[in-house]
Amino acid sequence: MTQLELARAGRITAEMKLAAEAEGIAPEIVRERIAAGVMILPANKQRDLAQPKLIGYGATTKVNANIGTSGDWPEVEKELEKLEVALAAGADAIMDLSLGPNLRRARQEILKRCPVPVGTVPIYEAGFYGELSKDKLFQVIEDHCRQGVDFITVHCGINRRVLEEIQESPRVCGIVSRGGSFIVRWMQETGEENPLYAHFDELLELVREYDVTLSLGDGLRPGAVADATDGPQIAELLELGRLVKRAWAKGVQVMVEGPGHVPLNQIETNIKLQKRLCHGAPFYVLGPLVTDVGAGHDHITAAIGGAIAAAAGADFLCYVTPAEHLGLPDADDVRQGVIATRIAAHAADLAKGIEKAWNWDKAMSKARKELDWEQQLNLALDQATAREMRKRKNPGHRAECSMCGEFCAMKQCQ
Amino acid sequence: MTQLELARAGRITAEMKLAAEAEGIAPEIVRERIAAGVMILPANKQRDLAQPKLIGYGATTKVNANIGTSGDWPEVEKELEKLEVALAAGADAIMDLSLGPNLRRARQEILKRCPVPVGTVPIYEAGFYGELSKDKLFQVIEDHCRQGVDFITVHCGINRRVLEEIQESPRVCGIVSRGGSFIVRWMQETGEENPLYAHFDELLELVREYDVTLSLGDGLRPGAVADATDGPQIAELLELGRLVKRAWAKGVQVMVEGPGHVPLNQIETNIKLQKRLCHGAPFYVLGPLVTDVGAGHDHITAAIGGAIAAAAGADFLCYVTPAEHLGLPDADDVRQGVIATRIAAHAADLAKGIEKAWNWDKAMSKARKELDWEQQLNLALDQATAREMRKRKNPGHRAECSMCGEFCAMKQCQ
Repeated sequence: MTQLELARAGRITAEMKLAAEAEGIAPEIVRERIAAGVMILPANKQRDLAQPKLIGYGATTKVNANIGTSGDWPEVEKELEKLEVALAAGADAIMDLSLGPNLRRARQEILKRCPVPVGTVPIYEAGFYGELSKDKLFQVIEDHCRQGVDFITVHCGINRRVLEEIQESPRVCGIVSRGGSFIVRWMQETGEENPLYAHFDELLELVREYDVTLSLGDGLRPGAVADATDGPQIAELLELGRLVKRAWAKGVQVMVEGPGHVPLNQIETNIKLQKRLCHGAPFYVLGPLVTDVGAGHDHITAAIGGAIAAAAGADFLCYVTPAEHLGLPDADDVRQGVIATRIAAHAADLAKGIEKAWNWDKAMSKARKELDWEQQLNLALDQATAREMRKRKNPGHRAECSMCGEFCAMKQCQ
Repeated sequence: MTQLELARAGRITAEMKLAAEAEGIAPEIVRERIAAGVMILPANKQRDLAQPKLIGYGATTKVNANIGTSGDWPEVEKELEKLEVALAAGADAIMDLSLGPNLRRARQEILKRCPVPVGTVPIYEAGFYGELSKDKLFQVIEDHCRQGVDFITVHCGINRRVLEEIQESPRVCGIVSRGGSFIVRWMQETGEENPLYAHFDELLELVREYDVTLSLGDGLRPGAVADATDGPQIAELLELGRLVKRAWAKGVQVMVEGPGHVPLNQIETNIKLQKRLCHGAPFYVLGPLVTDVGAGHDHITAAIGGAIAAAAGADFLCYVTPAEHLGLPDADDVRQGVIATRIAAHAADLAKGIEKAWNWDKAMSKARKELDWEQQLNLALDQATAREMRKRKNPGHRAECSMCGEFCAMKQCQ
């Protein structure tokens, strides 16, 4: 049985207990929410997940870091270094998006080392070997399941109805999802239905066996602010909402992926629409990036959008690094991306009213008022950077900081 | 006559014409808005401002960079380097917050070199010399006016009524405004009324002569998310609303300063409250920072808050640098702060529906779809960083980027 089925049967599993404790939520509430589908606990039965995570209603906002090889940087070791960096920076989940040679080994090594949930996009592997048949794709998916992957992105929502929508659409940037573009190209070349849609029940049976959580990909997510919230995006979201119900009916855990590039004032609408159309299933967003012109700083454009999205109800933020739109991130980009996204997630947790988030900020501000530097540095979201900066910027070994020095407002008035 | 008085008299000044052109707004509309007080054009009569800027309703969101010496870093030359960096990164205004020796020379050199409006906080100078009498303070203000400063922050709203409010308040962080803390300490020591409040009409007469714009400081801005939108903050805002009307009655241009640290879901309320209580006067916010725990990355916590604030109607964003809460920013911090704040301002301009902001993003996305790299790099908000990163991350001299390489979604589907 899957965590969803066990929860429905009234059972609180060891993973639920562990994750509930980390979250500070009563295990029974966690069980209820998993049973209702509004919370997920991605944990492949094949592996022993040291730190299971809860994603969904009432949990803290979670942060995913994408790593993985590419044609230009095929070395698995570099990706394992990024894995360490992402975990040290506080990522709650890792996706291995490898798209170079050594795909399978990269995944194996990441799964071996990673104490938090690991996700993949199996179509990359099928696409990489140029064999986009239904059989090959399902064979790759089964291999990922068997290896222990906890959640997989599957672009099941792009069916022929939705494809018509995109073909009539005057988008600026067309299709920007890598997985989505594999599917669409295959559909256009063969004239056939998307195999992940046509054989969705078979997919459900396959993943249910391993309790692999489905992350329903948004192949038509907007890649330009001008394309946001358009017909194709919403047409696909409607399909995803239907697929959520089918997954639940088969006892399969599921979340839904979302945009992308979205202007700031359309983000809340996007979140509310997903929550309604997808029946409260957890929402996993990439960004959203609030402008198209931030190349080199897209961890910031995404942090702005991610904070707003999560405050409005998004549950899981996929990080964006400073390298987005320019190239494959290196280890430092990974670090910057995780930190920026954690800031967004935490800012949203304050807005969501999560008590432990408020206690953290209060403790920091109390330490700030008291000029207790050791405590301030301990409480910084990124301790290492704060500590290094305080040291470098305090040549006079002051009790205050070097901006106001003796004129520190904290000291002037008690 | 001030720009406000000239606008009321139906005159379109050379500065209005120049600024209107840069903005892409008809000069007559600019004149009407300046006359109504909902837009300002800070430009001291004493100097010839090369790039006058419009701040307020219908204009693009503007970005201010704070520079200035401190006790630990008193070198004027370092600040002039920061000035160049801030201007090159695209700051629309500069505030000289020097608080070390050589205060006057720093200001003089900055004014000489800066083509955009320059602001100061005169009380720092009075406070620095430990002479916080009414006469000394007004003497310093007059000196700033005569030197050519375009706008000054004056904490006029902290009167004895408001002081009672703060003394009864259970704030976590108390008073965090440097200028505000000078005023409050002086009021507590002398038992007298805040001279900037008690002699507000005299202040208006003084600045009117030079057409120096008043930036009404928020001495009680919250410095912790737990203190946001509390009694003292709103009590002061009420006073500032009254002072706005008095400034307008005397023909003095005025804007209002705002927080500070504010949880994401309280930002819109703060902006709407200011717009209502201050009768549509332009709103100049510091951040807001959406969490207290971001030390080392507060340009990001502030970019999140600034984007939301400006989208809700704030007109002018004061940058925050990565050094905030840790020390005086260096030149690189200044650069990072300006860029992050410009991203926030531009994201808000998209939300505000400003046409030239949309055209910029559309042009970028079109170039991205066409894999036209030269155009993408030219259109990046931070060209230098994007250019360097593209070069470094493209070892194979690909037509795509090194993340997806040949599997680029832009290429898979046309």
